[in-house]
Amino acid sequence: MRRMSSDSLLKRRHAALGLLCIMALATPPARAGDTPLGIAQQLSRAALADGWSHNFLEGLTTEIGPRLAGTEAEARAADWAEAQLKAAGFDAVHREPVPMTAWLRGVETAEVVTPSPQRLVLTTLGGSVATPAGGVEAEIAVFRTYAELLAAPPGSLAGKIAVVTERMVRVEDGSGYGAANPIRRTGPSEAARRGAIAYLLRSLGTDSHRLAHAGALNYAADAPKIPAAALAGPDADQLERLTSRGPVRIRLVLTPTERPDAQSWTVVGEVKGRELPDQIVLLGAHLDSWDLGTGATDDGAGLAIVAGAARLIAALPAHPRRTIRVVLFGAEEMDYSGAAYAKDHAAEALHITVAAETDFGAGKAYALQLPAGAAGSPFARDLAQALTPLGVFIPRDPPQFAGADIQGLQHAGVPVMAARQNGLDYFDTHHTADDTFDKIDPAELAQNVAVWAAAAYLAAEDDIDFRATATPAH
Amino acid sequence: MRRMSSDSLLKRRHAALGLLCIMALATPPARAGDTPLGIAQQLSRAALADGWSHNFLEGLTTEIGPRLAGTEAEARAADWAEAQLKAAGFDAVHREPVPMTAWLRGVETAEVVTPSPQRLVLTTLGGSVATPAGGVEAEIAVFRTYAELLAAPPGSLAGKIAVVTERMVRVEDGSGYGAANPIRRTGPSEAARRGAIAYLLRSLGTDSHRLAHAGALNYAADAPKIPAAALAGPDADQLERLTSRGPVRIRLVLTPTERPDAQSWTVVGEVKGRELPDQIVLLGAHLDSWDLGTGATDDGAGLAIVAGAARLIAALPAHPRRTIRVVLFGAEEMDYSGAAYAKDHAAEALHITVAAETDFGAGKAYALQLPAGAAGSPFARDLAQALTPLGVFIPRDPPQFAGADIQGLQHAGVPVMAARQNGLDYFDTHHTADDTFDKIDPAELAQNVAVWAAAAYLAAEDDIDFRATATPAH
Repeated sequence: MRRMSSDSLLKRRHAALGLLCIMALATPPARAGDTPLGIAQQLSRAALADGWSHNFLEGLTTEIGPRLAGTEAEARAADWAEAQLKAAGFDAVHREPVPMTAWLRGVETAEVVTPSPQRLVLTTLGGSVATPAGGVEAEIAVFRTYAELLAAPPGSLAGKIAVVTERMVRVEDGSGYGAANPIRRTGPSEAARRGAIAYLLRSLGTDSHRLAHAGALNYAADAPKIPAAALAGPDADQLERLTSRGPVRIRLVLTPTERPDAQSWTVVGEVKGRELPDQIVLLGAHLDSWDLGTGATDDGAGLAIVAGAARLIAALPAHPRRTIRVVLFGAEEMDYSGAAYAKDHAAEALHITVAAETDFGAGKAYALQLPAGAAGSPFARDLAQALTPLGVFIPRDPPQFAGADIQGLQHAGVPVMAARQNGLDYFDTHHTADDTFDKIDPAELAQNVAVWAAAAYLAAEDDIDFRATATPAH
Repeated sequence: MRRMSSDSLLKRRHAALGLLCIMALATPPARAGDTPLGIAQQLSRAALADGWSHNFLEGLTTEIGPRLAGTEAEARAADWAEAQLKAAGFDAVHREPVPMTAWLRGVETAEVVTPSPQRLVLTTLGGSVATPAGGVEAEIAVFRTYAELLAAPPGSLAGKIAVVTERMVRVEDGSGYGAANPIRRTGPSEAARRGAIAYLLRSLGTDSHRLAHAGALNYAADAPKIPAAALAGPDADQLERLTSRGPVRIRLVLTPTERPDAQSWTVVGEVKGRELPDQIVLLGAHLDSWDLGTGATDDGAGLAIVAGAARLIAALPAHPRRTIRVVLFGAEEMDYSGAAYAKDHAAEALHITVAAETDFGAGKAYALQLPAGAAGSPFARDLAQALTPLGVFIPRDPPQFAGADIQGLQHAGVPVMAARQNGLDYFDTHHTADDTFDKIDPAELAQNVAVWAAAAYLAAEDDIDFRATATPAH
């Protein structure tokens, strides 16, 4: 699909956000400003006018750039983030170790050998094994849907490179990604079970650029580990067209390596509660990124949002009653952060009032989902008043999945809340070299900061017990 | 600048073109169909409904793919094109040799060494020399405009890598490219004169993807030849941001080579004139492409347009009076085709009634410029009637530049005509890996075929002498 210039659309979107900002700034405080709602509204207005988060993101993506989990670059990012949190006035800034096996990308090249020699654009999946020395060359078997691969009998792919060209669907809330995820996560082992010697998929993405989308795989314990990579969309198209004409052989060289004794870090800072410092409102995002881009939307934006929101709260004349803890997780992309943090903080889980995570770029938030039963509470009524001028409503349903970083806490019983954001174009650049600072809309980033400043403040100031709302007395 | 989904815009554009097609099909022939205008109108309607050009382009970009001048891939493309023209019923299909020096891309890598190690995306300029064995590492000097580089005194860049980050402007007719062209063409020698040891520019392009735009340079005879490459837009941004913080060192490895005894081919086919076969209406496009993409818009589209238009004319019950010659030039991107063809056909130039070239993708045509003085002729009045239903008008002014392939003929006195096309997004993918088949809009491609079928037919059937219209009697 051809994509056209949309400068005018962009301008209209900017103008609309600008109007929102002006309306928000022009709204007189309902009360003197010393009620929790009044303070939340002031925080939101301040966030819309604040450039700190955008500057933070510019600094991280420029001064650090890509920061693959367990590498020296991620360690530099942790140093950088720790210094930023200290400079921004956070309490108890520290880091927590996350031991891990690092996976390092090597060479990744592929080409059609016959019938018509040409290079293919792809990227090795995170966790993939390497091709044998010298690479592999074989005929490909193309499946236009993942279901067709799963329907192939055992042994039917012996000696072949399996290629799944199914397209991920573009959906407003990004749910097309979850639906297509098994193609990347479990596809390699499913192909191996059927005899394939390597596995390629069409990148999980919604763009049509010659930029492949990285991402991790999960090998099944009972299948041979075969090398696996994601093709750029147009390259998957090309293999479909070529195989419709006759047999196609490709050559593949992937040389990733692993380093089992690697180290990742989770960086933490707090806004210490003035009355109930042991009760924690946890805001998370992740510090590591894929290595192809500079991790601006995934998840530099999330870091900038949660740190920027908490920083505004830290600067209030009085901190809220509960503690707000900002947790910048390490090694999320390699599936370490959620489980590691939940394990290390198991004893503390009961003291976490609520946890939230932002890991979906800087697209405008349109809803904030609260823990089960909380949508009708006085807390929710205040929050709705604060969020309405930002174009955000509170739906009745709680979030099912609230983010990989806090999933371990969620499984341990910690209540979670989650923003819904416009994700229509999030998967255009997700996990690609194109995930860079220029893709961030400053006004939309600030709107997210405004949402979380209000939500975190009210959750920390209110006395709501989300565990109680989830299980009301009969 | 962030780019957003524009599916709805695209749909509207498709719907508008669809309507145009229906209107054109529904227009009853003004006369029985045996006048030149009636036949031209029938040709246009047939072109809008014809899938041949789109299939041709699919075949070329799939079965051949990239076809860098002077390579085995370009030779395969010449074989393929010759077979296509024969199968389509052209007369006198043959090829003409274009001896040339081939330039072959090698490794091209770059990275920031200090302050923050990270990979940069770039591509070597066509014709560039290689870096010394082992690459070069040096501090960069960033110039935000080309004028600033030109203002730097001799010797001021000694030992440095010069980087020009000026942005090419997005303009409807693509004229931003011509304006920025010296940055790529002459920048390397200008930097070398000032002592630079290598040269980088922001890609000449209008997108913001991590895909660099290739293109040729021209070394000055009196300056040292230094290696030169084009950075992807976001990488140029990154170097601007990094150098605003302090000194930046980068490492550059470029290993292009040259092969002086290479061979390119120009493939020719004709629709032999029924009365004046020695008078030639020449339609050109170029067969070679850059090696990063599959040359769908540059210039597979042009080939599909001129071959598709002439094919419809060849299938008429009676050929037009003059000959229509389709010339698929080789080695255009390396600056060989225009001069070579004019030299080889110098004796024939006086017999070329008019020449035209399509080398600007498949964006919708909106105007057709005729040779000087022809806009008021009876020929032009007929042509205007044929083109109006296609949304194309005939402006008063003749084309200045009508394409690189026919520039040699133009300089030898051959009258030229040229279509103006919507080029707002042409330079998003131009000379990048993203120049692939999926970027082609079939309806817009067909509209171009319709324009050229009518224009070529009328120019070949009419008795207009464009040399006479250019110099009217006083």
